[in-house]
Amino acid sequence: MSSENVEVFLASVPENEIIPDKTFAQRTVPVPSASNLKEGQLLVETLYVSLDPILRKWLTAPNPAMNMKIGDRMLSPTLARVLASRFSTYEVGDLVNSWTGWVNYAIVDADQVQKAPLPEGAKVSDALGLLGLTGLSAYVGMLRIGRPKKGETVVVSAAAGAVGNVAAQIAKIQGARVVGIAGGAEKCRFLVEELGFDAAVDYKAADFEEKFAEAVGAGIDVYFDNVGGKILQMALDKANKLSRIVICGAVSIYNKTDTYSGIKDAYRLALLSITVQGFNAFDYLSEFPNARGDILKWTQEGQLQRAETVVRGGLEKAPAALADLLKGKNVGKMVLEVKAP
Amino acid sequence: MSSENVEVFLASVPENEIIPDKTFAQRTVPVPSASNLKEGQLLVETLYVSLDPILRKWLTAPNPAMNMKIGDRMLSPTLARVLASRFSTYEVGDLVNSWTGWVNYAIVDADQVQKAPLPEGAKVSDALGLLGLTGLSAYVGMLRIGRPKKGETVVVSAAAGAVGNVAAQIAKIQGARVVGIAGGAEKCRFLVEELGFDAAVDYKAADFEEKFAEAVGAGIDVYFDNVGGKILQMALDKANKLSRIVICGAVSIYNKTDTYSGIKDAYRLALLSITVQGFNAFDYLSEFPNARGDILKWTQEGQLQRAETVVRGGLEKAPAALADLLKGKNVGKMVLEVKAP
Repeated sequence: MSSENVEVFLASVPENEIIPDKTFAQRTVPVPSASNLKEGQLLVETLYVSLDPILRKWLTAPNPAMNMKIGDRMLSPTLARVLASRFSTYEVGDLVNSWTGWVNYAIVDADQVQKAPLPEGAKVSDALGLLGLTGLSAYVGMLRIGRPKKGETVVVSAAAGAVGNVAAQIAKIQGARVVGIAGGAEKCRFLVEELGFDAAVDYKAADFEEKFAEAVGAGIDVYFDNVGGKILQMALDKANKLSRIVICGAVSIYNKTDTYSGIKDAYRLALLSITVQGFNAFDYLSEFPNARGDILKWTQEGQLQRAETVVRGGLEKAPAALADLLKGKNVGKMVLEVKAP
Repeated sequence: MSSENVEVFLASVPENEIIPDKTFAQRTVPVPSASNLKEGQLLVETLYVSLDPILRKWLTAPNPAMNMKIGDRMLSPTLARVLASRFSTYEVGDLVNSWTGWVNYAIVDADQVQKAPLPEGAKVSDALGLLGLTGLSAYVGMLRIGRPKKGETVVVSAAAGAVGNVAAQIAKIQGARVVGIAGGAEKCRFLVEELGFDAAVDYKAADFEEKFAEAVGAGIDVYFDNVGGKILQMALDKANKLSRIVICGAVSIYNKTDTYSGIKDAYRLALLSITVQGFNAFDYLSEFPNARGDILKWTQEGQLQRAETVVRGGLEKAPAALADLLKGKNVGKMVLEVKAP
């Protein structure tokens, strides 16, 4: 245990893009001591913080669960190790998923954490990625809402992102023809050559609309949306009869790249029997154990590749890493490794 | 069999409202003779034509199945009696559902009609109403997509209309709290006093928004949409977590009362795990026999009231009746009785 405890806090609400030194600031806070623990509490040490596009949204439109004000510690999903416990279920050394956020050491109520889901064969960071909310969102969104059938055309936006790449790979495992949308030629190459997508289209390219139309061919059966805005409407315009549109996120509006993220013609949903469904992985909580089993099995069989961007360094790297994430500089799940496990 | 055969045809495409004498015209055509029948054909006599809001939409944006041009006979769901048959499955006197449209007598291919679904205890016009696409749309839309649970709040627009009143009554049978939206105090009274709705709100009243907010209380769990436009957005703004929005029709845009009928903030669907689903009754074809069984049983038990507006007179009454329907002058299913069965 170090004698220093760094905490990164919200210094100002960003207007558009995050400006690392302006949006956030850091301070040194006292290292909490095990002797301060009350019954039912844990002392934990942060190993990884999860960097997710939705955090940007929550800076301006706080999620009730976060409810961060200026000066508050930045919260995010976190993987931590228990250093001291006054709750029977947890022992020193246990790894836990928590929301303690951007701090080295913290005291947390045991009912605010869960044991990290780390079966044999998993990487520690999988507790935030493939086996955390990222992988679970991809799994339930694609399989419970998208429900791709063999030979159907599935389109995934932000397909090189954390949830997108997993959702697309799961569709591929179901036998669908998978088209990814991503920013930049290198990401598109990665999706096709390394992850086995059938096609990938670069939304930053001048001929995006043309290439998109080409790639989707006869139309879209499942669209897994992480971006909203213009691309959502383009997908709706190509949606087939009885297609399913899965609304997972809308990074183009968190980022304010797009100001409108709606559906222009709701009547078309009736005409073509289209479903547009938003979801939260927790809607399917009872499926988590099975979902994690499937994901781990697919990973071990080589059907599902782990795509991960691990940023190394202390918590002072977190603001710039989050800004990079929102500029799409990551491939796959981005985590900051605060301390190697 | 009469010696005259009247046919009403599309004379001009209406800009906004239907103008009966301008949009349609009639002519006398030869009475087809049984001796003209080819193998596999039927000679039929029209008893009822179904008047449906969607017909307005199809005048300007032709449905591929209709594909009517100026000068073509107006098509609509029709209940007819077989006068002569050259197809083994049909006998003289059989009642059939067809799309022969606004004509007294017609020759039709037997594979273009279905036996009218008229079990004992049904009224003949039920083949177009409660036991036809009207009732079936209400049934599958409400039970397969809306899926109201006991105590949930269900809102139905155009609730005094053909599909709306049935959908709402089915929700009531499931134990939901049902709020109807309709035009005018008399329709609202009818919905509450005669059909047993928990509340009904008049969208033409000056205090509509206020009364709507009051009636939906803590929020909407199921919204069954027949109108689109502004009311769809109002319902979305009050939609609860995990709510279901059933898109059945959008009469406000067929009529051009509203020019926009979309969803402003698709991201909200993710935030609240909302489903917006369009449908066509034929998506659930295999359920039709069971659905008809349930509807008939509910009707006979007095749980489901038949709401019907029967216009009497010849086919020359059809244009004005359709215009009246689009002005909301009907209560329940509107049919034109061309000839009493």
